Amino acid sequence: MSIQDEIRKVKLASPRMAASPEETRNQALQMVCDALLAHQEEIFAANLEDMAQAQRDGVAAPVLKRLKFDEGKLRDVVAGIRDLIGMPDPLFQTQLARELDEGLVLKRVTCPIGVIGVIFEARPDALVQISSLCLKSGNCVILKGGSEALRSNRKLFDIIYDAARQAGLPEHCMMQLEARSEISELLDCHDSVDLLIPRGSNSFVQYIMNNTKIPVMGHADGICHIYVDRDADLDKAVPIIFDSKTQYVSACNAVETLLVHEDVVKELMPRLKAALDQKQVEIRGTKEIAGVIPCEEATPEDNTREYLDYILSVKPVADVYEAIDHINCFGSHHTDCIVTENAQTAETFMDLVDSAGVYQNCSTRFADGYRYGFGAEVGISTGKIHARGPVGLEGLVSYKYKLYGHGQIVEDYASGEKQFHFKDLK
Amino acid sequence: MSIQDEIRKVKLASPRMAASPEETRNQALQMVCDALLAHQEEIFAANLEDMAQAQRDGVAAPVLKRLKFDEGKLRDVVAGIRDLIGMPDPLFQTQLARELDEGLVLKRVTCPIGVIGVIFEARPDALVQISSLCLKSGNCVILKGGSEALRSNRKLFDIIYDAARQAGLPEHCMMQLEARSEISELLDCHDSVDLLIPRGSNSFVQYIMNNTKIPVMGHADGICHIYVDRDADLDKAVPIIFDSKTQYVSACNAVETLLVHEDVVKELMPRLKAALDQKQVEIRGTKEIAGVIPCEEATPEDNTREYLDYILSVKPVADVYEAIDHINCFGSHHTDCIVTENAQTAETFMDLVDSAGVYQNCSTRFADGYRYGFGAEVGISTGKIHARGPVGLEGLVSYKYKLYGHGQIVEDYASGEKQFHFKDLK
Repeated sequence: MSIQDEIRKVKLASPRMAASPEETRNQALQMVCDALLAHQEEIFAANLEDMAQAQRDGVAAPVLKRLKFDEGKLRDVVAGIRDLIGMPDPLFQTQLARELDEGLVLKRVTCPIGVIGVIFEARPDALVQISSLCLKSGNCVILKGGSEALRSNRKLFDIIYDAARQAGLPEHCMMQLEARSEISELLDCHDSVDLLIPRGSNSFVQYIMNNTKIPVMGHADGICHIYVDRDADLDKAVPIIFDSKTQYVSACNAVETLLVHEDVVKELMPRLKAALDQKQVEIRGTKEIAGVIPCEEATPEDNTREYLDYILSVKPVADVYEAIDHINCFGSHHTDCIVTENAQTAETFMDLVDSAGVYQNCSTRFADGYRYGFGAEVGISTGKIHARGPVGLEGLVSYKYKLYGHGQIVEDYASGEKQFHFKDLK
Repeated sequence: MSIQDEIRKVKLASPRMAASPEETRNQALQMVCDALLAHQEEIFAANLEDMAQAQRDGVAAPVLKRLKFDEGKLRDVVAGIRDLIGMPDPLFQTQLARELDEGLVLKRVTCPIGVIGVIFEARPDALVQISSLCLKSGNCVILKGGSEALRSNRKLFDIIYDAARQAGLPEHCMMQLEARSEISELLDCHDSVDLLIPRGSNSFVQYIMNNTKIPVMGHADGICHIYVDRDADLDKAVPIIFDSKTQYVSACNAVETLLVHEDVVKELMPRLKAALDQKQVEIRGTKEIAGVIPCEEATPEDNTREYLDYILSVKPVADVYEAIDHINCFGSHHTDCIVTENAQTAETFMDLVDSAGVYQNCSTRFADGYRYGFGAEVGISTGKIHARGPVGLEGLVSYKYKLYGHGQIVEDYASGEKQFHFKDLK
């Protein structure tokens, strides 16, 4: 049986998954928790094999850290699932109830998106989080994790899928792909897959976006900016920039470009350099910046570079409007911050910057589903169609219109014999 | 200046358009109404020229009917705009307000999608409706109407765009394309255009979907079904089927395939045929249907044909589940109806059929923004990402996250020094 035939079976399971009652889905999540705890030794053993193989393959330390699945990570994912169980059902919510005419009632009711394909990095805990979000939201899911986590993922998938079926969720509600070659088969399944969520490098996400007709949710770039305004409190600006740049340099929400109001360049830059020097951050500045502190020279390419490294480009701007134009032109519409004590300037910035997250006086690193209180996220979206920003449960649902009649036909309204009266029901 | 440069200007205008206050946008709509009425004679004159040209070109009667823009159509569009003015602002609505920690407040606020490209049929009233919806929702719009309406559209566009600027909306907030060749330039502008809404034939919409990286909202096929259940009231079934098929055969929400529970085939079909014969509807039935009434023989291709004509394919099914499977397999996820008096069977059908509209006991022709009470629509979406079904104002907005802090950094939370407390604000 081909991958495409297998994926077709997932599609066919999706209507029953969509109609599954809340209790069944919560029961499945509870059984997933129990099974993860019951089988933890097997999971850890599989993960140790993955870790050993990765070390033999010379995988980098940060990747090894993500790959590791130990007691601490297990505790975190189990706590996350328990949070999810306690969350209100995202399905069967009536968003609109309207009497169009006597005995003709329209309802808009939430439903799952259907079949979601998620391609993610070698992080076993991500497999658990993504699966749990999909189970809670009644979506079928096709999972392709990073190959370094093969053994861990296989074990975790089996445990979760078994628990889901034992709870009464339909067969084929989950599927795992293991070979990288299977990704291209997945990309061809636009008749069966409703949404793809690719996570990973810019070039990988671009590749996915350019090679499928399936809608893609996510982000390629994370070129985040901080603008330090004339009315900034520099005692806040320095730690915010330091945290945004160095707290986790390879994250999509790390700052890459700093824009500084020309009036505060002289005061800010020496203090900032002193702080960033602690982490050996390379500053790439324009001529104006180089006149204030020693730094590398920035080129035009630095406007559009996502360094994912201890590098920060810095440019002076004449006012908030120049900052806004720079961000809208060169940014990736992910997360951008203004540091200012002036509420009006902040609001101008936040209204005019066209990004999923617009911040005042805090680190760009807050852009994250957990930190927003969503429990978990499947990814961060920079698109403006459907979910934007960190995507939790809400971004995994759609809706359908249900219209209940008693034999009504359109001709009676077209001819003027009957009139609509549009009465919203409470 | 190239089309792409012009479109870039629209993109650059979009942040100011997004930040425009409600009063300015409503004022623009009021000025559009006034200007349309003040310039009606010029509009009618331009339309008469279009009509004369179309008649010389031998354009079909239904197309001429859509092309016509007279006092009646003007009255309708002006009434539509006045309704729109009275509607609540879709922008600046706070969907979520949450204190993450003391002095760190997250808000999710609605905002426009940005720049929307709409490619639509030769219907001058559609240009007015689409423009009005975009003005109200703070979206910049790029309009490409059917070429038969060239003169009417040019006149209407100038009137609307002038009124918008006079009211204070930004220059380049609207743009019109006139040549068909410009569509391919539009399709390349994925950096400037946030959403495309193509309306028209299946093949045209498919062409757009296959030739752009811009997200596309709409529908290609409209293969709608009616399933007549064993527990149907046939006195309702016959007029519902008649209306769904014949009230406007070329509409996307007209029924194309009828599924009939095998227990009611014998009773329903002769009565249905007598009704459909009044409009010379050709019935294409399976062998079982041909054993009950004289009809053409259906082939497997009839399962997936959108006739847009006086043709109906008919197939018996063993139960509601066979009907559901047929619809999910062969339908286009547009609008599908069950005729039954059994509320439980209806709910099974409506939960398991994966379509934008699922109906009980009424005509599929109700799938329309006006009939749903949305005032107007930019189109009907069969996608499940973003808006689904008839798309009015609500489908033209996205949201952004605004995070207000006082110097908070992530490291304090990562290290455990501080904890989030996630308190929803009223």
